[in-house]
Amino acid sequence: MKKILNNPADYVDEMLEGMVAAHPETYAQPVRRVIARAAGTKKGKVGIVTGGGSGHLPIFTGYVGTGLLDACAIGDVFASPSAEQMAEAIRLADGGAGVLRLYGNYGGDVMNFDMAGEMAEMEHDIRTTTVLLTDDVVSAPKEEAEKRRGVAGMVYAFKIAGAAAERGDDLDEVTRIAQKTADACRSIGMALTPCTIPQAGKPTFEIGETEMEMGMGIHGEPGIWRDAIKPADEIAEEMLERLMADQPLAKGDRISILVNSLGATPAEELYILYRHARKKLDALGVEIVMPLVGRYATSMEMTGATITVIKLDEELESLLKAPAECAFWRV
Amino acid sequence: MKKILNNPADYVDEMLEGMVAAHPETYAQPVRRVIARAAGTKKGKVGIVTGGGSGHLPIFTGYVGTGLLDACAIGDVFASPSAEQMAEAIRLADGGAGVLRLYGNYGGDVMNFDMAGEMAEMEHDIRTTTVLLTDDVVSAPKEEAEKRRGVAGMVYAFKIAGAAAERGDDLDEVTRIAQKTADACRSIGMALTPCTIPQAGKPTFEIGETEMEMGMGIHGEPGIWRDAIKPADEIAEEMLERLMADQPLAKGDRISILVNSLGATPAEELYILYRHARKKLDALGVEIVMPLVGRYATSMEMTGATITVIKLDEELESLLKAPAECAFWRV
Repeated sequence: MKKILNNPADYVDEMLEGMVAAHPETYAQPVRRVIARAAGTKKGKVGIVTGGGSGHLPIFTGYVGTGLLDACAIGDVFASPSAEQMAEAIRLADGGAGVLRLYGNYGGDVMNFDMAGEMAEMEHDIRTTTVLLTDDVVSAPKEEAEKRRGVAGMVYAFKIAGAAAERGDDLDEVTRIAQKTADACRSIGMALTPCTIPQAGKPTFEIGETEMEMGMGIHGEPGIWRDAIKPADEIAEEMLERLMADQPLAKGDRISILVNSLGATPAEELYILYRHARKKLDALGVEIVMPLVGRYATSMEMTGATITVIKLDEELESLLKAPAECAFWRV
Repeated sequence: MKKILNNPADYVDEMLEGMVAAHPETYAQPVRRVIARAAGTKKGKVGIVTGGGSGHLPIFTGYVGTGLLDACAIGDVFASPSAEQMAEAIRLADGGAGVLRLYGNYGGDVMNFDMAGEMAEMEHDIRTTTVLLTDDVVSAPKEEAEKRRGVAGMVYAFKIAGAAAERGDDLDEVTRIAQKTADACRSIGMALTPCTIPQAGKPTFEIGETEMEMGMGIHGEPGIWRDAIKPADEIAEEMLERLMADQPLAKGDRISILVNSLGATPAEELYILYRHARKKLDALGVEIVMPLVGRYATSMEMTGATITVIKLDEELESLLKAPAECAFWRV
């Protein structure tokens, strides 16, 4: 296991301790495995919480910050946090105007977050709503889009809903905008090498030395095909085609695009992917707004990339461009 | 070769094309393999140029931006750009107040940049100065510190000298401050896995499945020892001890520290390293200012980390904290 760690059982707690120590002006950990804004939630502001497994930085905890999230419950690597931790996150995010639970569609997270919502409503009288990200187009067919997993589309949802909450929108409005953002996002991934969960000590999957897998999920969930690595332009072409088959794009549409590394794939190669995506979208007459190229949602040291497209209208675009700040991203 | 690319010979040009396309408000490529500020150098401002091989994003090209660099000449992966490209970078960086060449101490780069300086002086009457980064403590003994290689200390040099130039300091003053910054930086690296140069198609070195190498350079230059992977706290401890043996730190000193991934090592593990470094420095009574944890100077998909410490005085600290902006970093 080629990782820099101490006892694998301490991986998450030591990571969180280091993260809070490095950025005390941004993050606090008032309860174990719950990260909240160091400054707390403003009184009267709608709170936004998320949660999920560790190992995806900046997702999830990294996006706690101004114009973004208020709190986050974080589990073991690739494992759901407990309902109790999620309820603590809701409590910490509460500024008296209700709390939106905004997270990815994974069985364990949904079960625990539903329970956490009930706990928060019963014990603390906090009104909560839920929006689930289901942006991974490969994880279920379009007719069952509600079964899809949530991946890097979360970044757009955190940003846009976060901006709506920050400007003072009420819970129903923040929830409406978050759902609209989730509905406008489509993502697809591809992987070249796996990562290793510290406590498992072995790679999450096996793949040949010259193979890639198209459509693979961020935890190594099976994709569409596995074959010899294709040229970057062909990879980008197929990923965009599959996204556009699910959500057509036409001349005059405005989108943002996130070309994201799963961890080990370097920025150099993301820009090679972006280059082709840009050419293709330019040729279609689609306007790209605020493209994001980098590591926004990772799986530790996994090699591979994801592409997310969000179709914008004026409302989403202005919220996307609003100021935001966390230790990993500043707009 | 587990990389996302088209023809390996096009890796650098396609990467630069994608980078400029993604961030046209920041970067321009007026001459092939020379990146300059999209807005150009302000008239009357001292220009700062750098240069070196590709494959280290954000180093070198990524740091072109306000409060940072004015232009950069970029070579093939891990190879020096030509003297002509460097001379073009100098010409593009010139705002009429002279140009500082600020880069890492590598044979090919030094030879070509010296030649480029002569060309710029002769052909365009541009006064130039040079400051070399020699922060890698393992690459030569202290008595021959001028022979050391430059690594992630460059990030501090670009930031601090860039702030001095941006506020209007003259060439002699920017050069003095850059040299003072270079003198205050110490770095050390460790590696777990190599990377692959696209045109070579095979890893830069071989290393066992459970081995690490302490002190290895960013191109795979030999380090101090190779052995079974140690716990993160021991790794951080040894790295800091070696840095402090070269530049002692005492109670009351103010430093900044950069815990940097060579590429594949995830943010999670950088924070585990930072956690121990912070504890150790806290115990010594050393004050950490603006710690940097992330990917600031990489070797594509190499696994490993570097730690840089810069000892600050009031002048360096205020310049470090001054505003700066490029596509990879905003202060």
